[in-house]
Amino acid sequence: MNYETYFQSNRDKHLNQLKEFLSIPSISALSEHKADVNRAAEWLATHLEEIGLEHVTIHQTKGHPIITADHLHAEGKPTILVYGHYDVQPVDPLNLWTTPPFEPDIRDGKLFARGATDDKGQLFLHVKAIEAILSQEKKLPVNIKLCIEGEEEISSASLPPFLEANRELLAADAILISDTSLLEPGKPAISTGLRGLCSLEVAVHTSNMDLHSGTYGGGVPNALHAIVSLLTTLHDEQGRIAVDGFYEGVPELSAMMREEFAKQGHNEQALTESLGLDTLYGEEGYSFVERTGARPTLELNGVYGGFQGEGTKTVIPKEAHAKITCRLVGNQDPQDILNKIRKHLNAHTQPGAKLTITDGEKARAFNMDPTDRVLQVAADAYGKVYGTRALFTKDGGSIPIVETFSRVLNAPVVMMGFGLPDENLHAPDEHLNLENFDKGLLTIVEFLQTV
Amino acid sequence: MNYETYFQSNRDKHLNQLKEFLSIPSISALSEHKADVNRAAEWLATHLEEIGLEHVTIHQTKGHPIITADHLHAEGKPTILVYGHYDVQPVDPLNLWTTPPFEPDIRDGKLFARGATDDKGQLFLHVKAIEAILSQEKKLPVNIKLCIEGEEEISSASLPPFLEANRELLAADAILISDTSLLEPGKPAISTGLRGLCSLEVAVHTSNMDLHSGTYGGGVPNALHAIVSLLTTLHDEQGRIAVDGFYEGVPELSAMMREEFAKQGHNEQALTESLGLDTLYGEEGYSFVERTGARPTLELNGVYGGFQGEGTKTVIPKEAHAKITCRLVGNQDPQDILNKIRKHLNAHTQPGAKLTITDGEKARAFNMDPTDRVLQVAADAYGKVYGTRALFTKDGGSIPIVETFSRVLNAPVVMMGFGLPDENLHAPDEHLNLENFDKGLLTIVEFLQTV
Repeated sequence: MNYETYFQSNRDKHLNQLKEFLSIPSISALSEHKADVNRAAEWLATHLEEIGLEHVTIHQTKGHPIITADHLHAEGKPTILVYGHYDVQPVDPLNLWTTPPFEPDIRDGKLFARGATDDKGQLFLHVKAIEAILSQEKKLPVNIKLCIEGEEEISSASLPPFLEANRELLAADAILISDTSLLEPGKPAISTGLRGLCSLEVAVHTSNMDLHSGTYGGGVPNALHAIVSLLTTLHDEQGRIAVDGFYEGVPELSAMMREEFAKQGHNEQALTESLGLDTLYGEEGYSFVERTGARPTLELNGVYGGFQGEGTKTVIPKEAHAKITCRLVGNQDPQDILNKIRKHLNAHTQPGAKLTITDGEKARAFNMDPTDRVLQVAADAYGKVYGTRALFTKDGGSIPIVETFSRVLNAPVVMMGFGLPDENLHAPDEHLNLENFDKGLLTIVEFLQTV
Repeated sequence: MNYETYFQSNRDKHLNQLKEFLSIPSISALSEHKADVNRAAEWLATHLEEIGLEHVTIHQTKGHPIITADHLHAEGKPTILVYGHYDVQPVDPLNLWTTPPFEPDIRDGKLFARGATDDKGQLFLHVKAIEAILSQEKKLPVNIKLCIEGEEEISSASLPPFLEANRELLAADAILISDTSLLEPGKPAISTGLRGLCSLEVAVHTSNMDLHSGTYGGGVPNALHAIVSLLTTLHDEQGRIAVDGFYEGVPELSAMMREEFAKQGHNEQALTESLGLDTLYGEEGYSFVERTGARPTLELNGVYGGFQGEGTKTVIPKEAHAKITCRLVGNQDPQDILNKIRKHLNAHTQPGAKLTITDGEKARAFNMDPTDRVLQVAADAYGKVYGTRALFTKDGGSIPIVETFSRVLNAPVVMMGFGLPDENLHAPDEHLNLENFDKGLLTIVEFLQTV
């Protein structure tokens, strides 16, 4: 049976297994879901054993468990380490989901669920591709290792020390990750760059209690006034980040790089329409793909304070909060950026506002050389299945652990994504297009057979 | 028995009755409390009948019920209409209450509960004062009417048409309201001015879904960036409101008015400390009592958008919201102010942000002539009970219905407050100092006997 026939005849079974995996609410950020995260790890470990992988181990950590497994019987052949994560993002606002996030539903050739594309769905492709080869050939064309974590959405705190402590267990010739996207349907891409990330939380406190705006209004500091005027200073009117020294270490875009970006033929008008935007918006002088692929950002992810209920409440809130993340590129150092933002915020605080700043995640940007042989083989594998060879692109997202993997294991990383940019990862109605489910399986099989 | 003895010997009974009233969560702003609001109205109506008031009637409205009652057997004597409200503010953030808001608790001579001072507690003083005179004298020294509503905290929508339609039923020589404060313990005040109010809600929408900051960050509008930069433009760096024409109709402070304000001997240092502030803050060139008594405001009461949970979420939110109220003075017209704010907001919106502005409450400022005879009698009544004659002040709060009462019934309004400025009205741990519970009862009896 060729693989196309094999996957078609097992399609319903595979999708039902994936739905089972997706129905476990393994939200790593929320402590009340700790048991669900464990349950997802156990589900996956059991499944890896069932398909014939060996040495399946659940490693407990200070955070959520890491799973390793292997199949090392292809003597003289390269060793490929597959990385993925079984944890998912929170799901609020829940009311914007068409169907519940943990009740997977297929509509219009798309599988809807939290984690469908990021990353349970993509991780699952590797499991099924390995199972397929094992079941068809009774052996694998390469040596396979798996290292699957449950903290990717909360900055992978446990994985770097785990990698350091298990260099031998995890040693490989290449690292294979599916946690990125095609450029658009039918247009595969291999990401050769990821933006770094740093995050912080800002709290403004004014009085020791919420105050009545009749009695005190106009005479005391208002935490919301203080925070909005503070947050506004972070950007200038041209959309540039106004923090002193923020752009140090950011490489200028060369003419060649601009040409590479232009090659993607990205349709800004179509994107604007599909997202329901009036207009795109960002740093002046750059296209959308340049802004998101090669330029750093500072984004407000959450701002809140005061009354949010129905109707009016004439309150002067005593505190207000903001959650901020930056995407980093080039040589920007996450801690240095956090220090600069802290200095900026302290210098721009209104009288009467007391500031608390808490540093969060820190990850450097990552870049791969697209002429590396495994990346070329991967691009060819896409070409065979999709009829279009993969382009080498830079991805705006951050997978902080990629840089660590590459550095600690001293191996190239192949980011072989099967998502699509509009699949609502981190948002309501996250989904995976089943066309890429089908083609992803075949692409991975092709890659493993030719690498 | 003199009234002091009478009230002392009935004190526990009265406080238990008030606790019963306070334990009904009659939050007018929240539709899920509709039944509780009705229950509070019924409790009060029953109680008014029990103390001997006549024609007790619950009038249904489009919103919450209005209660009227009377006792009209003092021929040739003036008629006093008592106004109050049995609805209360929302209670969030609930975790900041020392004891639950609807489980009244007495600590350190203070009664803690939502509504303890605003306004169930103050309203209750009138009921008990009337009951006391009736029980001691078997008659009242004046004709009494009551008009109690359940929509004061949501702008009294039903009351103005009710007043217009019932001018005869409610006709009176003076309107008596206890919904304001002493200046400080032992320092009574009669408010001769209230600020007006207008409110609005602002929503900013950008994309049709929340977006991942990796894929889209730096390339699309962020609703939170748009709203903070928009809200910041509402004030200038001197704390003045930057909306074109906002100060039209605001009277300049005359030297005489500044002298009146100075007479209050307000201790700004003590206030700063008691509120836990680093510093007071507001429009340059004015003292705290001038800012809150005679100057208009524009306050952010709530701002929210994006992720508010534990940890980090790298989301670009598709929408953000703000709730705004203004306190108005002099001849500022609420609708005119709302129009000016709308114009300002529309002119300062970032590219890519779609604005929705919803007008809310509208009330004009109100002013009384302190030389009016009933106000002089009221000041004397305080003097007799407190040992200090009440000062005539201006109050920063808004009781929108006061202006309507005075205009429709063509009668002076006596704002005889028994709260204190630090009793956390509209905030967690709202309370009423029982010293003013005791003295308030006696002051009202004294007023009714001498007016």
